[in-house]
Amino acid sequence: MEINNIDVRNYPGSTKTYVEGKLHDIRVPMRRIDLTPTVKIINGEKMMHENAPVYVYDTSGVYTDPDVTIDINKGLPRTREKWISQRNDLEQLPGITSEYGRQREADKSLDSIRFANRYAPRRAKKGCAITQMALAKQGIITPEMEYVAIRENMNNEKLGIKSHITPEFVRDEIAAGRAVLPANINHPESEPMIIGSKFLVKLNTNIGNSALSSGIEEEVNKAVWSCYWGGDTLMDLSTGDNIHETREWIIRNCPVPMGTVPVYQALEKVNGNVKDLTWEIYRDTLIEQAEQGVDYFTIHAGVLRAHADLIGERLTGIVSRGGSIMTQWATLHDSENFLYTHFEEICEILAQYDVAVSLGDGMRPGSIHDANDRSQFLELDVLGQLTEIAWRHNVQVLIEGPGHVPMNKIKENMERQMSACHKAPFYTLGPLTTDIAPGYDHITSAIGAAQIAWLGTAMICYVTPKEHLALPNLEDVRNGVITYKIAAHAADLAKGHPGAQVRDNAMSKARYDFRWKDQFNLSLDPARARQYYVESHKDDD
Amino acid sequence: MEINNIDVRNYPGSTKTYVEGKLHDIRVPMRRIDLTPTVKIINGEKMMHENAPVYVYDTSGVYTDPDVTIDINKGLPRTREKWISQRNDLEQLPGITSEYGRQREADKSLDSIRFANRYAPRRAKKGCAITQMALAKQGIITPEMEYVAIRENMNNEKLGIKSHITPEFVRDEIAAGRAVLPANINHPESEPMIIGSKFLVKLNTNIGNSALSSGIEEEVNKAVWSCYWGGDTLMDLSTGDNIHETREWIIRNCPVPMGTVPVYQALEKVNGNVKDLTWEIYRDTLIEQAEQGVDYFTIHAGVLRAHADLIGERLTGIVSRGGSIMTQWATLHDSENFLYTHFEEICEILAQYDVAVSLGDGMRPGSIHDANDRSQFLELDVLGQLTEIAWRHNVQVLIEGPGHVPMNKIKENMERQMSACHKAPFYTLGPLTTDIAPGYDHITSAIGAAQIAWLGTAMICYVTPKEHLALPNLEDVRNGVITYKIAAHAADLAKGHPGAQVRDNAMSKARYDFRWKDQFNLSLDPARARQYYVESHKDDD
Repeated sequence: MEINNIDVRNYPGSTKTYVEGKLHDIRVPMRRIDLTPTVKIINGEKMMHENAPVYVYDTSGVYTDPDVTIDINKGLPRTREKWISQRNDLEQLPGITSEYGRQREADKSLDSIRFANRYAPRRAKKGCAITQMALAKQGIITPEMEYVAIRENMNNEKLGIKSHITPEFVRDEIAAGRAVLPANINHPESEPMIIGSKFLVKLNTNIGNSALSSGIEEEVNKAVWSCYWGGDTLMDLSTGDNIHETREWIIRNCPVPMGTVPVYQALEKVNGNVKDLTWEIYRDTLIEQAEQGVDYFTIHAGVLRAHADLIGERLTGIVSRGGSIMTQWATLHDSENFLYTHFEEICEILAQYDVAVSLGDGMRPGSIHDANDRSQFLELDVLGQLTEIAWRHNVQVLIEGPGHVPMNKIKENMERQMSACHKAPFYTLGPLTTDIAPGYDHITSAIGAAQIAWLGTAMICYVTPKEHLALPNLEDVRNGVITYKIAAHAADLAKGHPGAQVRDNAMSKARYDFRWKDQFNLSLDPARARQYYVESHKDDD
Repeated sequence: MEINNIDVRNYPGSTKTYVEGKLHDIRVPMRRIDLTPTVKIINGEKMMHENAPVYVYDTSGVYTDPDVTIDINKGLPRTREKWISQRNDLEQLPGITSEYGRQREADKSLDSIRFANRYAPRRAKKGCAITQMALAKQGIITPEMEYVAIRENMNNEKLGIKSHITPEFVRDEIAAGRAVLPANINHPESEPMIIGSKFLVKLNTNIGNSALSSGIEEEVNKAVWSCYWGGDTLMDLSTGDNIHETREWIIRNCPVPMGTVPVYQALEKVNGNVKDLTWEIYRDTLIEQAEQGVDYFTIHAGVLRAHADLIGERLTGIVSRGGSIMTQWATLHDSENFLYTHFEEICEILAQYDVAVSLGDGMRPGSIHDANDRSQFLELDVLGQLTEIAWRHNVQVLIEGPGHVPMNKIKENMERQMSACHKAPFYTLGPLTTDIAPGYDHITSAIGAAQIAWLGTAMICYVTPKEHLALPNLEDVRNGVITYKIAAHAADLAKGHPGAQVRDNAMSKARYDFRWKDQFNLSLDPARARQYYVESHKDDD
């Protein structure tokens, strides 16, 4: 199987640049937008004033670096490999260790769709605490930590803008659990990034095929496309055939951390029969995915039977797929959610690969009516207890949040999460602030996402225009990402993130000067801005 | 000249209904969305549960009433005519009284583009205080007031939902200046609506041709289209040829209040030469438009020379067109803004027709950088003084607000407006919460609009995706209106407006029941929701 290279180019008027580390031998990518000078005619004389270039955060990886030859069939350069291979706390395994992974490897019929390059996975040496959190607690500033410190600051130092973000600050936030640096040791293609309320607000995009729709090429396309437009992380929510092989293609070509919901694949392995789910199958799935390089797992370990009993009070019951699967399983087996009862073992596995846990909110409200109800907040308290367990294992933790929440109830979500979950980063889906606009739920939810991010949510999960109606296509991914970049950036401005306003000011000045090309190039979506302008001006002159 | 009828139909699954008044002989339109029953199979038996219909606010006028024959060339039924003609405080003039209006009337060359039906305008009898505010102060509940009380409540009484909105409450809010009921006595086609922070949040749309682009038919189309999707008021910002005739076509076919910025037309009358603007030309323009039926005028009377001197502190100077014209005029004539010096006379004219004044914010910030600066807030204080003058003349007052404001500076705008302008309704343009997303400014601004509306802004002016780039076409108007309906409704929910959540709950239940047709019909944009669903499901089965 060969996949065509994805057609993304560098952004217009922009140059890929790299800033070097001071502590480590690292190169941190940024995008420099060059501007034209301001021209004024004063007393008949043409005066030119230079406009300084603007440096912006760049999630697109080497796809936009003209010096790198992209070959989707070979995968991205494994930049972190060098740092990882030098570590003494890791061992290279002779091969993959999950039962399912080995089965798939041995299955000749899959050769035709398999990603060609294969890498033996790494794992922590016995007794070694290897996660970024474990290292941070020991006072170690890893290359990943210095990388994100430089990355968050853009060009602040040169511009004379003061910033609180230093490598030591990054280390301290990770050690305290207030920030997460998702960095599975088996995903060396990923460019380090950080999720925490004192950093730039991040956005996650969801992709994934379902049984009926897209294939491998389309999913890899969506992944690259999402990074190109500004997605900071990516969740692969595939439920169709060949999940294992599709994931391999995506991870090997993915410059941002990738997350999954392992129970989705575990359920596929038992043909969708919830009753047949077992801890053993789930456990094997965690290992399978951890060895492929998944950076964070959504795990619905906080949905307890006692909470499920309260959903009679709701208009829309349980809308989280993971929450619904686990509640159903617990009822069928008349026992507690096995993700809850096995949570310590889960953490032991995750700690060996530095997979972060994203504690899923199985009780997230699915409607304005159900927002902030008892079952939602009872689960949140459990997520707080699980956070403490994970941290004891040095597993990094994200807390997932709603969902559907009217504006007047958003603040309570943030406050309760902060106190119940000990300031672990909050990661919310929207929230949607009304239910009456299907087809426009990127907007109903961006209104909520901007607010909750301003209040302290560290990462917002995008919603596309097709939410509630269909799976997103490439254009929907683009619209979803740009809409969420807007929400995230509006929050960065409101929080006064160092240097966040530099790009706005450059845009405003370009607008005031009628420098159209600069306006397009400074836009979140240069192609769209140019298109609207050109279409309406094509008949001029 | 003949214009084709606008192709809007009734909304799917919906019926136009009317609720009758108790105090007056009035019929208030609403849209009833009928729902299918919930079907459950219990023990092999099919159980059906009825779902009550949902009543929603309807801005579309009789365009969606199948019992009314629409003829754009004849204009809408003049529903308020009966109420107005019975009043003793008004007189019918023999003909139009503005000089310019008479000139246009006498110009045979305009016959081909003229709206055919002509009506002699009405005006207050000498010494009579005839505005809704004047009547409210006298303790009179007009038909318009009862109409909006019923309209705001939808079906609350039948649903057992308590509401603070009674005809007497409406009267009291108008008397105190906290709400505006725009109702020029010469626009009897308009269906009464109310703008105030204790009522449903309203949205305004801007249309208007420029010299280069659209003609009369296109503008009438945009007006009807805007009402169909949910626009509550409409501003005609035309600057091209035949403004007078275009406006006549729009008003005679417009079921919502219409506003203008009279100085735009005044400037056309002096061929765009700011220096040649005079109070006399402007005054004649006010009368011309008041006699056509314009319901509110944006007047930039608060831009003073002293404030203009402060714009050196700004990145983007003065971006309000009206503000820029008046500042330029004042500088060229070395004198104070004539709208400020003649404000008492302006109020005397407006009071005779019940035209509301919308005090324009000529100093509104045009960038994140300039938000909440000195010149902006100094002007706001002047608008507060002008509000008191207008109220003495019983002229209803709206206060216009920004613009470009980061989220953390939105609250200060609302609080200062409330205190400086004595709780006159606030009417803001967005605000845009970042400058870096041209092509998506409906979204950057809806994020701000939802927040400021929640805080108390009574009406939000839409922004379309083409803002800063081009004039909107029909599809842009639709996207702008729906986006702003979302922002307004999210604010209604957050404010707990009586009955606002009924539609959300019905949608959520339909979603939980998988009643797809009901989900489409309950949507703000049923056609779009259906389209997305159908496109993605066309290959199923």
